[in-house]
Amino acid sequence: MAKRINKIQSFLNEKGIDALLLTSKTMKKWMSTMLGSGCRVLMTQKQGYLILDGRYITEAKEKEHDLEIVLHNPHTTGQSYLAAVLKILQDEHCHSLGVEASEVLVKEYQKLQSLNVDIHLLDDDIMNLRIIKDEEEIKAMETCIALTDEIYAKVIEKIHVGMSEYEISALVQYYAIASGAQQMSFDTVVTSGERTALPHGRPTDRKVKAHEPIMIDFGIQYENYQSDMTRVCFIGEPAYEYKKIYDVVLKAQLAGLDAIQSGVKASDVDLAARTVIEEAGYGDYFDHGLGHGIGVTDSGEGPILNSTSSTILKDHMMMSCEPGVYVPGVGGIRIEDDVVIINGKGIPMNKTTKDYIILEEK
Amino acid sequence: MAKRINKIQSFLNEKGIDALLLTSKTMKKWMSTMLGSGCRVLMTQKQGYLILDGRYITEAKEKEHDLEIVLHNPHTTGQSYLAAVLKILQDEHCHSLGVEASEVLVKEYQKLQSLNVDIHLLDDDIMNLRIIKDEEEIKAMETCIALTDEIYAKVIEKIHVGMSEYEISALVQYYAIASGAQQMSFDTVVTSGERTALPHGRPTDRKVKAHEPIMIDFGIQYENYQSDMTRVCFIGEPAYEYKKIYDVVLKAQLAGLDAIQSGVKASDVDLAARTVIEEAGYGDYFDHGLGHGIGVTDSGEGPILNSTSSTILKDHMMMSCEPGVYVPGVGGIRIEDDVVIINGKGIPMNKTTKDYIILEEK
Repeated sequence: MAKRINKIQSFLNEKGIDALLLTSKTMKKWMSTMLGSGCRVLMTQKQGYLILDGRYITEAKEKEHDLEIVLHNPHTTGQSYLAAVLKILQDEHCHSLGVEASEVLVKEYQKLQSLNVDIHLLDDDIMNLRIIKDEEEIKAMETCIALTDEIYAKVIEKIHVGMSEYEISALVQYYAIASGAQQMSFDTVVTSGERTALPHGRPTDRKVKAHEPIMIDFGIQYENYQSDMTRVCFIGEPAYEYKKIYDVVLKAQLAGLDAIQSGVKASDVDLAARTVIEEAGYGDYFDHGLGHGIGVTDSGEGPILNSTSSTILKDHMMMSCEPGVYVPGVGGIRIEDDVVIINGKGIPMNKTTKDYIILEEK
Repeated sequence: MAKRINKIQSFLNEKGIDALLLTSKTMKKWMSTMLGSGCRVLMTQKQGYLILDGRYITEAKEKEHDLEIVLHNPHTTGQSYLAAVLKILQDEHCHSLGVEASEVLVKEYQKLQSLNVDIHLLDDDIMNLRIIKDEEEIKAMETCIALTDEIYAKVIEKIHVGMSEYEISALVQYYAIASGAQQMSFDTVVTSGERTALPHGRPTDRKVKAHEPIMIDFGIQYENYQSDMTRVCFIGEPAYEYKKIYDVVLKAQLAGLDAIQSGVKASDVDLAARTVIEEAGYGDYFDHGLGHGIGVTDSGEGPILNSTSSTILKDHMMMSCEPGVYVPGVGGIRIEDDVVIINGKGIPMNKTTKDYIILEEK
């Protein structure tokens, strides 16, 4: 069932590296192979191997037909999986081995050094290997994002004056897990009132009131792919000051979406949205980048959309577009969609409305 | 607000290391200081420092009075926080620096090596620093475990024939987050019927039936401390074969609890429970260790209770006691309590019954 084997082999070829050891959940998800901590993938330019211990063998034999399954038995041999890695490297005459710098713990690295091959620490290269999504990945993201929209709709139906941020966050997770999400993409953000000025505030026991912003930023992991969406809703008509900020942020978000095109530099997309906010006089209150890549993990996906990112956008890149304005003591608004570039143009994938979301005062 | 500073300083003194850099969430939780990824703790034998960037300064000034706050500004200086680390090490004439081997990424480690001090990679030593809990930690665990019991009671009230494992898992998370839990300790296990033979099965859309086991293994993180509990319940009377397994597992669990005493070797506790299961003829179906330490993280807490663990148990150690029997194609039972050793004796902290939990057939 392993996928994207060819992509990895072309990468190795291009970099002139003989083999690549993948141990992170991120890369195992991306390859759609087994995720257990005792499962590791070793790719050479010729062949792919799934190295695992006895706990995983039954499942592997049933499911994994694209990688050669290599069983190692730490209990009887007293050796770690690296003995199996070494044997393959020797059999295939590999002299260099790439590893994931941003995933490998130093403890593990020390063991790797004992293998006596050239170790290449790969960092951005690994991220960039995932940056262009294939059709199947885009489909997986579509499903995941559609579920995200549905979950949001169910949650806001239940929100009422006096409900705590904790309860709202609990509802988000309830509907997510009940829909079959494997987990949340990241710690769910639920803030209300002046607390919405915290860009990534965690929920508290604060009870929501009418006319104030209620910010929910959440994502789900569904079949290994992770969504990320932010909306702000209100119980009853939003207070004037919040409407004012909302309008600016929405205008900035639309400008950002408009700027997402293949051939455009990521920093220019950030600038397009940021200029709208600056011109409205809120420049000091937008203190994070415009967006980040999305895919199998919530951190470490490209492209990054911020003022220093020189990445040139391309077709089939996927990213969030999430400008925000946060005024301390008052509150904040952020509007975030997931976006894919198709035929040169950025297409927002979320269907949840970006008009004021006004809930009935029950 | 930072805690356990003296404990760390005694540790440094004992190990003959001049300073300790703590970057993991685990150790920041244990110290009860700020958890943000941009916050790092540097402890010398004389002083403790909280190194952070501008995002955290307001909160740090309000909350952190026990560590000296050191601001570094990567945007204006172009330097990472390690420049601040280096300056402190130089000012205090430190020549050796301990780091967390099981938390530091190789990427980070390479930067550390540029500091030009002796780097000590600490692994089990860091785990052992946390292994004896103080009164405050035991209190925090008590609160967390009491909440866990309450959540379980709320969940089983709602379980009915035809409900999916997903929905049950969603309920667990709903009540957890709504109670103010920061997050789940680990991916919640919900299995039913023959799927209970998977020791750590994740929920699926399988619908639960009467008379079969429904296994729920979950934990919550509450005020930084993490619980871990497993119970198996039944809708209506359990089928005979499950009762038989249940009785054996319960007997083993009680034998394990009984064996948890200060001065006893951890492997002997494992043996006490394992012998009961072996004598009942299920030895081959109990294929994991008896338990693990609990505290601020779900992995990497001591003591480990398994057949090779030579740790000698002591007062104020805390651990899970969780024997299980898993018969492929039939099903499994696991019963897990969190335990603390007080005055030489292991005290189970969960109050949820260990008799058959039989829910009404609605």
